[in-house]
Amino acid sequence: MLQIAPKTVSDLAAALGGQVRGRDDVVISSIAALSVASTGSISFYGSDNFRTQFLATQASCLLVRDADADAAPCASVIVVENPYQSCISLIQHCYVPSKLSPGYRSSSASIDPTAIIHESAAIGPGCVVGRECSIGENVELVANVVLYPRTTIAGGTTVHANVTIYQDTVIGEHCIIHAGSVVGADGFGYVELSDKSYQKIPQVGNVVLGSYVEIGANVTIDRAALESTVIEDGVKIDNLVQIAHGVRVGENTGIAAQVGIAGSTVIGKRNRLAGQVGIAGHTTTTDDVVVMGQTGVTKSIEVPGVYSGNPAQPHMIQLRQDVALKDIVSIQQKLNELSLAIKALESKD
Amino acid sequence: MLQIAPKTVSDLAAALGGQVRGRDDVVISSIAALSVASTGSISFYGSDNFRTQFLATQASCLLVRDADADAAPCASVIVVENPYQSCISLIQHCYVPSKLSPGYRSSSASIDPTAIIHESAAIGPGCVVGRECSIGENVELVANVVLYPRTTIAGGTTVHANVTIYQDTVIGEHCIIHAGSVVGADGFGYVELSDKSYQKIPQVGNVVLGSYVEIGANVTIDRAALESTVIEDGVKIDNLVQIAHGVRVGENTGIAAQVGIAGSTVIGKRNRLAGQVGIAGHTTTTDDVVVMGQTGVTKSIEVPGVYSGNPAQPHMIQLRQDVALKDIVSIQQKLNELSLAIKALESKD
Amino acid sequence: MLQIAPKTVSDLAAALGGQVRGRDDVVISSIAALSVASTGSISFYGSDNFRTQFLATQASCLLVRDADADAAPCASVIVVENPYQSCISLIQHCYVPSKLSPGYRSSSASIDPTAIIHESAAIGPGCVVGRECSIGENVELVANVVLYPRTTIAGGTTVHANVTIYQDTVIGEHCIIHAGSVVGADGFGYVELSDKSYQKIPQVGNVVLGSYVEIGANVTIDRAALESTVIEDGVKIDNLVQIAHGVRVGENTGIAAQVGIAGSTVIGKRNRLAGQVGIAGHTTTTDDVVVMGQTGVTKSIEVPGVYSGNPAQPHMIQLRQDVALKDIVSIQQKLNELSLAIKALESKD
Repeated sequence: MLQIAPKTVSDLAAALGGQVRGRDDVVISSIAALSVASTGSISFYGSDNFRTQFLATQASCLLVRDADADAAPCASVIVVENPYQSCISLIQHCYVPSKLSPGYRSSSASIDPTAIIHESAAIGPGCVVGRECSIGENVELVANVVLYPRTTIAGGTTVHANVTIYQDTVIGEHCIIHAGSVVGADGFGYVELSDKSYQKIPQVGNVVLGSYVEIGANVTIDRAALESTVIEDGVKIDNLVQIAHGVRVGENTGIAAQVGIAGSTVIGKRNRLAGQVGIAGHTTTTDDVVVMGQTGVTKSIEVPGVYSGNPAQPHMIQLRQDVALKDIVSIQQKLNELSLAIKALESKD
Repeated sequence: MLQIAPKTVSDLAAALGGQVRGRDDVVISSIAALSVASTGSISFYGSDNFRTQFLATQASCLLVRDADADAAPCASVIVVENPYQSCISLIQHCYVPSKLSPGYRSSSASIDPTAIIHESAAIGPGCVVGRECSIGENVELVANVVLYPRTTIAGGTTVHANVTIYQDTVIGEHCIIHAGSVVGADGFGYVELSDKSYQKIPQVGNVVLGSYVEIGANVTIDRAALESTVIEDGVKIDNLVQIAHGVRVGENTGIAAQVGIAGSTVIGKRNRLAGQVGIAGHTTTTDDVVVMGQTGVTKSIEVPGVYSGNPAQPHMIQLRQDVALKDIVSIQQKLNELSLAIKALESKD
Repeated sequence: MLQIAPKTVSDLAAALGGQVRGRDDVVISSIAALSVASTGSISFYGSDNFRTQFLATQASCLLVRDADADAAPCASVIVVENPYQSCISLIQHCYVPSKLSPGYRSSSASIDPTAIIHESAAIGPGCVVGRECSIGENVELVANVVLYPRTTIAGGTTVHANVTIYQDTVIGEHCIIHAGSVVGADGFGYVELSDKSYQKIPQVGNVVLGSYVEIGANVTIDRAALESTVIEDGVKIDNLVQIAHGVRVGENTGIAAQVGIAGSTVIGKRNRLAGQVGIAGHTTTTDDVVVMGQTGVTKSIEVPGVYSGNPAQPHMIQLRQDVALKDIVSIQQKLNELSLAIKALESKD
């Protein structure tokens, strides 16, 4: 439930371009789901799957489709085309994220004197800002964030608690990095010696994030060996994702939780990678590729479309294969039957 | 090896309800596995797999089955029905976890003056307690823990180092949250615009953990979009698990490492999810479901039982399928042979 | 791009055992990839795949094979046998990692007076060093690192930001532990009671890391129930890997990102585990085993070699199975055709 500054149903309808039925002077002070809404809440009903909750809701006002307006159990409704979308718009309109005060500098933060920090940026408790870092306008480092030397963060970006950013990382505008993530740790690069022990290759590249990038919690994005690991503008990355050294992720690509992308791979623009997908190193995916959950991409994908399976193949082919595979036991049995039938025919001759 | 307050074999036998054979005045000061036990240690021997270690152990006393008492190479044994269970009971009885002193407040912690903290709670170094947090009796925040505003933690709960808890999270009694975990970060929720870029949907719900919940290290549990992500009483979650926004996990369910549960999914009570399982969004599993490692659950599971494979199916069916699949190369060969045999028969006619 | 102390081409060639063609007095002040090199950079060209970048590079000097020396678009080249290897050697030679000053003690660190810390060790801001910890020569704790009581760290080891090390952990010489990792949290060990609720088994063992171990970011390595979880010398572990309680990993084994190894499993020496592999509990792999990405190892592997699939089998067998599996739909069709052909033959009789 989101508490909001109180507004009348009439005001909310005007903001959403909807039409009020019933009382338009009811005061709304929260946005809530049907089942937890109470007096003063606005909620939404847009899918018949939730009919029971709709009829029992305690909300004071509902966003509904025209056809549902009369059945609503509350004193006022706002009729809109798509109640779910309108509710999201309402939340986006009303939500004021809790932030540190602009210009805040916690006394427990350790800020190197060579760092250049915009006066409006807020540095929370326990944060560590290394040598020659550069922090832009309205940036927020929430708490216990560690920036290694020469990190650059552009305006409007929020870095949540316990995040670590290694040296020379470049972060664009209006990014969000959730708690516990690590950006710029060493790539997994070694020379294998003749006794199969490993000699470390220093990882001297960096990580570059574009603008409007969102990174989930406990994500890891490694620095490149010599150049840059690049996450382009508008990319959204869910929790516990691994991006190895030298990877490039194309703009507006979305990556769900626990995906792993191995070294030097290039992901196209507007890809959609579902949860737990693994993508081998030194491969590419073209633009507009969708990869289903747990898929193992072992070779480059050069044609846009939907892929699944391990090794990955076009999803429609994989589905047909899965259906046939469920019959494999009966295939085996039938094969034995035919074999006997043929022997019978052969012995008749 | 666990160092314990010294006790005689006689005292330990009484505590465990076991029967001493040999000397009952030997003093025991540690609990150890057979192979690392030394003078003063008690160990256990309950499985013939460890016969060699049993015969060579340096332990001063052993928990054994009746049949093994005579062969034990030490001055005293305690005969019990199940030596492994008795050893666990003994550890549970003797183990005193190292904790901060009750009421401790580190001088390097940042505690908002509006937070309400029970006088017995301990707040370790570098911890950050935000506005209007509420912390119960004997709660321990070990070190560098960050609580965003309005976090509520009930009595007896321990939060380990470098954990981040986002705003409005509610945590029950006697929970343990291991280091590096992130509870309440934003769910992965966006509106996809016509150019396939993403517009963020503010995630304004929260996370609610029941009592006796244990969460492993570097786990991520996201806040719901509008309502609550709920982990019910007694749930145990291993390391690196992802729980997406709006998920509900039923009581006494166990979730092994690296499992991922996608958004709005409902997991039943007493489920057992093995490592690296993935469960699709908007699905449910009924109570008493067991899912084997790496399984991909793509649809709801409505019947209790054991499941495996990708897509998941009943484990016994999957096993038969796996066995048949190993024969697929010979199926192909046999099919070619039969085809030739039929051609031969046809040409005879 | 790595900035280095300026040196002439002549000096670099001598250090690498290479032969200069062209001017030997050009001053080099950075090492860079072909495409980002500029005046003052040295780069390398060793694979025809990068011919376009080679011909267009702005580098002042290139490491090249003999055959490519004449085509190089710069005033000087150094001819070597393997340009890639020579470039790595050059980076290893020139790279000076940024470190805290030896002996540094941040005023915001919390160091227990009973801890024994070598005078040359550096303790960064926000670090917490618990009771009776022991920290060796030239150890570096970067920032916000938390060491629980009785942690031992030998000389030359670096622990990056926001790492948590639980009590009694033993860490060898010259290890690197990347940001966000958790070493020594409780293993996932419970007794299942008759109502299927869980009773915690205290985890009273520890974790022991050998020397020259490197651990990636956000890794979790759990303490053993009673003995030790052991990572032997020279093991390299990538990001987001899970090592459960009681596991032993043999020396010089490499483990890629997001691998999970369940409890009590023993991994041999010089294994190579690719990304997202899962290995069941209480199993072993012998020395010199290679496991391909996303493989599910359900039983012990007793013969060295390459394995893949779920359940895992020798990779060559899995590959043949994968090829046959792609034909399963046509197998099914052909089986139906043969069935009809046999019926036709039978009806003729």
